[in-house]
Amino acid sequence: MLDLALIRPLIQSALKEDIGRGDITSQAIIFPSSCGKAEIVAEEKGILAGVELAKEVFRLISSEKVEFSYSLKDRDILVKGEPILIIKSEALNILKGERTALNFLSRLSGIATLTKKYVDLTHPFKVKILDTRKTTPNLRLLEKHAVKIGGGFNHRFALDDGILIKDNHIKACGGVKEAVARVRRSLSPFKKIEVEAARLSQVEEALAAKADIIMLDNMSMEEIKEAVKLIRESNEGTLIEVSGGVNLASVVEIARTKVDLISVGQLTHSARSLKMSLNLMES
Amino acid sequence: MLDLALIRPLIQSALKEDIGRGDITSQAIIFPSSCGKAEIVAEEKGILAGVELAKEVFRLISSEKVEFSYSLKDRDILVKGEPILIIKSEALNILKGERTALNFLSRLSGIATLTKKYVDLTHPFKVKILDTRKTTPNLRLLEKHAVKIGGGFNHRFALDDGILIKDNHIKACGGVKEAVARVRRSLSPFKKIEVEAARLSQVEEALAAKADIIMLDNMSMEEIKEAVKLIRESNEGTLIEVSGGVNLASVVEIARTKVDLISVGQLTHSARSLKMSLNLMES
Amino acid sequence: MLDLALIRPLIQSALKEDIGRGDITSQAIIFPSSCGKAEIVAEEKGILAGVELAKEVFRLISSEKVEFSYSLKDRDILVKGEPILIIKSEALNILKGERTALNFLSRLSGIATLTKKYVDLTHPFKVKILDTRKTTPNLRLLEKHAVKIGGGFNHRFALDDGILIKDNHIKACGGVKEAVARVRRSLSPFKKIEVEAARLSQVEEALAAKADIIMLDNMSMEEIKEAVKLIRESNEGTLIEVSGGVNLASVVEIARTKVDLISVGQLTHSARSLKMSLNLMES
Amino acid sequence: MLDLALIRPLIQSALKEDIGRGDITSQAIIFPSSCGKAEIVAEEKGILAGVELAKEVFRLISSEKVEFSYSLKDRDILVKGEPILIIKSEALNILKGERTALNFLSRLSGIATLTKKYVDLTHPFKVKILDTRKTTPNLRLLEKHAVKIGGGFNHRFALDDGILIKDNHIKACGGVKEAVARVRRSLSPFKKIEVEAARLSQVEEALAAKADIIMLDNMSMEEIKEAVKLIRESNEGTLIEVSGGVNLASVVEIARTKVDLISVGQLTHSARSLKMSLNLMES
Amino acid sequence: MLDLALIRPLIQSALKEDIGRGDITSQAIIFPSSCGKAEIVAEEKGILAGVELAKEVFRLISSEKVEFSYSLKDRDILVKGEPILIIKSEALNILKGERTALNFLSRLSGIATLTKKYVDLTHPFKVKILDTRKTTPNLRLLEKHAVKIGGGFNHRFALDDGILIKDNHIKACGGVKEAVARVRRSLSPFKKIEVEAARLSQVEEALAAKADIIMLDNMSMEEIKEAVKLIRESNEGTLIEVSGGVNLASVVEIARTKVDLISVGQLTHSARSLKMSLNLMES
Amino acid sequence: MLDLALIRPLIQSALKEDIGRGDITSQAIIFPSSCGKAEIVAEEKGILAGVELAKEVFRLISSEKVEFSYSLKDRDILVKGEPILIIKSEALNILKGERTALNFLSRLSGIATLTKKYVDLTHPFKVKILDTRKTTPNLRLLEKHAVKIGGGFNHRFALDDGILIKDNHIKACGGVKEAVARVRRSLSPFKKIEVEAARLSQVEEALAAKADIIMLDNMSMEEIKEAVKLIRESNEGTLIEVSGGVNLASVVEIARTKVDLISVGQLTHSARSLKMSLNLMES
Repeated sequence: MLDLALIRPLIQSALKEDIGRGDITSQAIIFPSSCGKAEIVAEEKGILAGVELAKEVFRLISSEKVEFSYSLKDRDILVKGEPILIIKSEALNILKGERTALNFLSRLSGIATLTKKYVDLTHPFKVKILDTRKTTPNLRLLEKHAVKIGGGFNHRFALDDGILIKDNHIKACGGVKEAVARVRRSLSPFKKIEVEAARLSQVEEALAAKADIIMLDNMSMEEIKEAVKLIRESNEGTLIEVSGGVNLASVVEIARTKVDLISVGQLTHSARSLKMSLNLMES
Repeated sequence: MLDLALIRPLIQSALKEDIGRGDITSQAIIFPSSCGKAEIVAEEKGILAGVELAKEVFRLISSEKVEFSYSLKDRDILVKGEPILIIKSEALNILKGERTALNFLSRLSGIATLTKKYVDLTHPFKVKILDTRKTTPNLRLLEKHAVKIGGGFNHRFALDDGILIKDNHIKACGGVKEAVARVRRSLSPFKKIEVEAARLSQVEEALAAKADIIMLDNMSMEEIKEAVKLIRESNEGTLIEVSGGVNLASVVEIARTKVDLISVGQLTHSARSLKMSLNLMES
Repeated sequence: MLDLALIRPLIQSALKEDIGRGDITSQAIIFPSSCGKAEIVAEEKGILAGVELAKEVFRLISSEKVEFSYSLKDRDILVKGEPILIIKSEALNILKGERTALNFLSRLSGIATLTKKYVDLTHPFKVKILDTRKTTPNLRLLEKHAVKIGGGFNHRFALDDGILIKDNHIKACGGVKEAVARVRRSLSPFKKIEVEAARLSQVEEALAAKADIIMLDNMSMEEIKEAVKLIRESNEGTLIEVSGGVNLASVVEIARTKVDLISVGQLTHSARSLKMSLNLMES
Repeated sequence: MLDLALIRPLIQSALKEDIGRGDITSQAIIFPSSCGKAEIVAEEKGILAGVELAKEVFRLISSEKVEFSYSLKDRDILVKGEPILIIKSEALNILKGERTALNFLSRLSGIATLTKKYVDLTHPFKVKILDTRKTTPNLRLLEKHAVKIGGGFNHRFALDDGILIKDNHIKACGGVKEAVARVRRSLSPFKKIEVEAARLSQVEEALAAKADIIMLDNMSMEEIKEAVKLIRESNEGTLIEVSGGVNLASVVEIARTKVDLISVGQLTHSARSLKMSLNLMES
Repeated sequence: MLDLALIRPLIQSALKEDIGRGDITSQAIIFPSSCGKAEIVAEEKGILAGVELAKEVFRLISSEKVEFSYSLKDRDILVKGEPILIIKSEALNILKGERTALNFLSRLSGIATLTKKYVDLTHPFKVKILDTRKTTPNLRLLEKHAVKIGGGFNHRFALDDGILIKDNHIKACGGVKEAVARVRRSLSPFKKIEVEAARLSQVEEALAAKADIIMLDNMSMEEIKEAVKLIRESNEGTLIEVSGGVNLASVVEIARTKVDLISVGQLTHSARSLKMSLNLMES
Repeated sequence: MLDLALIRPLIQSALKEDIGRGDITSQAIIFPSSCGKAEIVAEEKGILAGVELAKEVFRLISSEKVEFSYSLKDRDILVKGEPILIIKSEALNILKGERTALNFLSRLSGIATLTKKYVDLTHPFKVKILDTRKTTPNLRLLEKHAVKIGGGFNHRFALDDGILIKDNHIKACGGVKEAVARVRRSLSPFKKIEVEAARLSQVEEALAAKADIIMLDNMSMEEIKEAVKLIRESNEGTLIEVSGGVNLASVVEIARTKVDLISVGQLTHSARSLKMSLNLMES
């Protein structure tokens, strides 16, 4: 699902970052032409994400054909000690690509694995788990991919990707009503309008302005319930999103309120990387 | 300490990633020329890292002069609710830079804060906390900066930045002795040699090969103690590093063995981002 | 409204393209340090678009401060023989930037001027004139800006910017219904769904699938009228777009059918550039 | 004749511009691995230009081998309804490349077709139709290629590609004589000197200065005839170019004066794109 | 005369190459904010070239304003022990830029100095000393600038910058006559035609084909004299170039034959760098 | 040993520099599809360096498979008149790549050949010949490779690649002792410390500060001998480097003093290019 053409420059600069002016250890020890076989192994359980990236790392670094004689695919379950990918290539290039491949894989699988936990917990409810724009600079495309692999959905990719009227916008122009009016003036017909509401009065304003989506931002459980009631009574079609400090402990209670969307910054800004390793095998 | 010239392209592409084809919400709501003032506020305690990056975000996005009427500096302590940075610029550009600035700041401060915990815990012992190459692809320069801000030291920046003979190298050439011999043949006089040892016999081989640094990789506490004894008796000058799955629970016990260096992958691959927010102020 | 930071690389490569290895004529004739003053003059009437781009051309090429002692702004009316912009800078750099600045200005003003004609003709009707993705490769951001300056609205910026199920998609998966179903499965809540319909039966399928927007593609006037009737009777909220070979001769009749949107490829793929020239003045 | 290595970056950024963060419609509807076959069809008559570019679009976007089972070549005649190119590749990638390939092809074929009209009209006379530097920013190499495909010749590619002393240069240094003198001082032996003359007195000055080429700029037919007489009597070898507002209505009369060169800005700044479409076929 | 906008990327990548991941020595020793003053001093005599490049190095590396309180300019004479440039900036940034600035300056001044020797030796004769395309990859613009500073003239900048029919072309198409005929078919009116002749029969063919310039390639003095006689008798206007293994010992004898142009590969492929150094001064 | 992935962008921009907007001579004369065979021949004796670069030039410029039916390899001896490389590819692309390939090969082989002279002269002594950072901007990786091919060793690649406390550092902080102390505070355990000493008192300070390497900078033979004695008596392990104005005449006498390292700027800043040529062969 990831468009390799779009992310190849990212992989190339990551390789350059890790190799620098050359892998002086491996170059001194290993003959340039000697073949190698290696496996990437999961060191803990989880959900795999980014395996196509890892493959591309080894392809980009090799002048010769690289072969993957075994490969899990994104969304597969990781089992501790079990192989993820088996690579056949020049031994030297396998070692040069090792760290970069693992760094991508561990991070993305960590995100997918955490997302999956949220998705599983809220499975009984008809709610979508969303990511945010709190992603690692320059890796958003990858991290949002990992969220989808974990069963989540993507919120806006960038500031061009949907209208979201936030606290600061409302402050700057005097009110929800005026903000929405200004936005409608030049709006592309393809865009929906979301309004962030920090209290019930703003929910009412957003409803009055016919927002497509209303985000309940940092509200207490009580406020969320009241807001949901207010919105559902007013307009069946309006989508409701809850946002702000959601965690594994609170997500089920929020889901129970029957909101449509819960966005979780932690998915991308604080997921723990999964442990993996690469081992040369007898070839 | 960060060289802005080196990281400006990184900030520029991060801005481009977040802005995409334009901030359609802010552009519709806020007049291009209207001035703004905003503060970035800490939402939890910690150590600040990356403030020069955040400033550069706002400078790069503005055509006019940006003013910072208040600013903490890297290594300062963050207090919940207290301001980190006050920005005066065009309101529109403050909002366009908000997310990118926060994403850099939160991530780097998270790393510095976690590093500081390790450094404080091991303070009584003469040991250096090191990072690893398990960093976010393309952000290594920044993340290694954050580790130093937190009081840690930097391990190799890249594969060119020191010899580290690892498990796979030893496997590929038949033994520590042969690996070190091959490396010495063309070695720049500026480089030190580190050898990774997974068991005591390899420690002995590394000592025999006169490695400058020996890394005890994934050893049990018992093995570490024995290895330290072995090395200290053999050569006072050899540096000892412990690596592999170190965490806040185990680091003190390791430090107590009087090793010189402890490297912690978690510092950069799994630190939690710190919470911060940006608020427009009355200007 | 144009984000200069986003388009600066475009201007820089355009300058490099036109200057090549140096302006060998001007460099031989004009002293590097001599000041100059020049005006850009409209050679025919129209609507101005891109003046900020033209200014940036001269800023990027000059090491010293450039001054614009007079300037129209985007959306202003061009009068034959009247000045658009007066530039004070090094004479050498004014000449180096001349062609690049004019090429941007003439092309974008041509687009804005043509768009304005469509907008004025359809003014009595509540219809929006839209652009398409038939833009000049690598200039889409600029050309879509010019369309807005002329009073038009922007259709999708790129393939990520809204769902548009076209003929080829329907062919590939067997029908409108199946296509929409597949799209809904992973759709971001921010996106609307548009379906292209080439005949009435497809309009019905699109209505059944609850498309947000239905595009009537290359239909005859009769078909358009019937389709509008069908859609309006079925669902007041669905937006109707007409597309395909629209021109200045046909646009009014189409507008009269009370569709919501008319998209016109010609705006960006075949607008005529406006004539302009740059003249050095006595300084 | 086009050097693909030089223009590949241009195609890549055009693809990135059109795909953005992914083709969300096609990705949801079409299976990544399913094969596809499509034809690009001419929707009106003309001259084909840029087919190698279109092929490269599909090659760059595909990870697998792309096959072109049928292909016209540049300079071939386009017949309405007839195929130009048949592509076999992954269906998903064909759809991703469609718009970019068509945008290049339609624009360049439009230029070639318009150029051919000028060339055919002036065929009886020994005159060359030239382009100008009034090209689309960043597409000059391609557009000048299309002019050649249409039977035209290329004027300067850039400011380094020949001396052209224009009005503004003459104004800046006091006269044609002085301008030519300054240019000769450091001139590479490979360069010719062209002087722009807006009136007969300047033609005389240019002749006196031994210009290799004299451009008659925006002169009336009467002035052109007189200038040609003057030049031919003075120096058989001097080339004569007519420039400024030439169009299909005036070009024959100009050609009749036996000038050597006629340059036409319209070829590149205002050619109409040709209509073409891409259709998936039963594979 | 050098266009800084064109060469800034070159300087930036050179700085990045030399600084790598940071100047770890200077950063540890010098306070970021401390001011510094330094002079670049000539360590041997010669002709200065590239001083604007050196200044740009320090400007690019500094966030603050850099001041040059003293500066020679290109073409000035270097005296051993005398200052070339005095820089006031942050001490840290002066040290970071030192090597890059000196590497540019020493190399270019070396080229200018060597060129000046050839120009002075041939001064009594009306001959131009030319460079070749045997330049350092990616530095051609700079090196050809240095040749002009030394009093030389520039041959072709690139393969697009003039027709030069060489041995291999003649071999590939069967003869000088056929080669010239093919070239004339699509030739831009701005281009001259040069033919390389390795023996007298080829000189005759080149004359018959009306070449604008004839290059006598690797001929003996006897052959050169005969060729000059042949050409001058046949056509006064044809330019004669001598090329191939010219050195300081042979150039005068060649010049005496009254050829128009002598091209010297050594100017750019084997000039010795001039010695210079940078010293911090009491500020 | 050279990492092609790292240097490919360098080759690509060199090709672009030399081809510019197209090889107008070859394109007019040679049919695009015609095959060709060519040999690169040594025109003088020496040591080959950079042959993989030359091959990559032809690979990058060709759309089809390139074949090398004969090839020397780096470190092989060049014999005047003997072939280095035989290339089979499109004739047009061979000619387009010719100059770029030769420019790389001649320059790097020149460096390797000069290095070999130093290495051979000092062979009887246990000393390593080192390069410096006085390299051609942006070609350091290549030039340092050529030095190794010639039997030399690499000094620092960049300012991050080892601590070297120089004259200016000492001046800036008051003394060797203070400089070393500041450096040790944040030093990575992977880095060695070298101190530059211009006189004996500084040698003593460097010894006291336990520098790993002491560089004797621009010392007379007498001083060098005394310094060596001083250092060897004080600490067997300290490496001694001699630097500054070393040439082929002085290197043996220096080597005789039993220093460990001699660095020679001339290797990269003033090596003479080797003569080579490319000839099309009967194919």
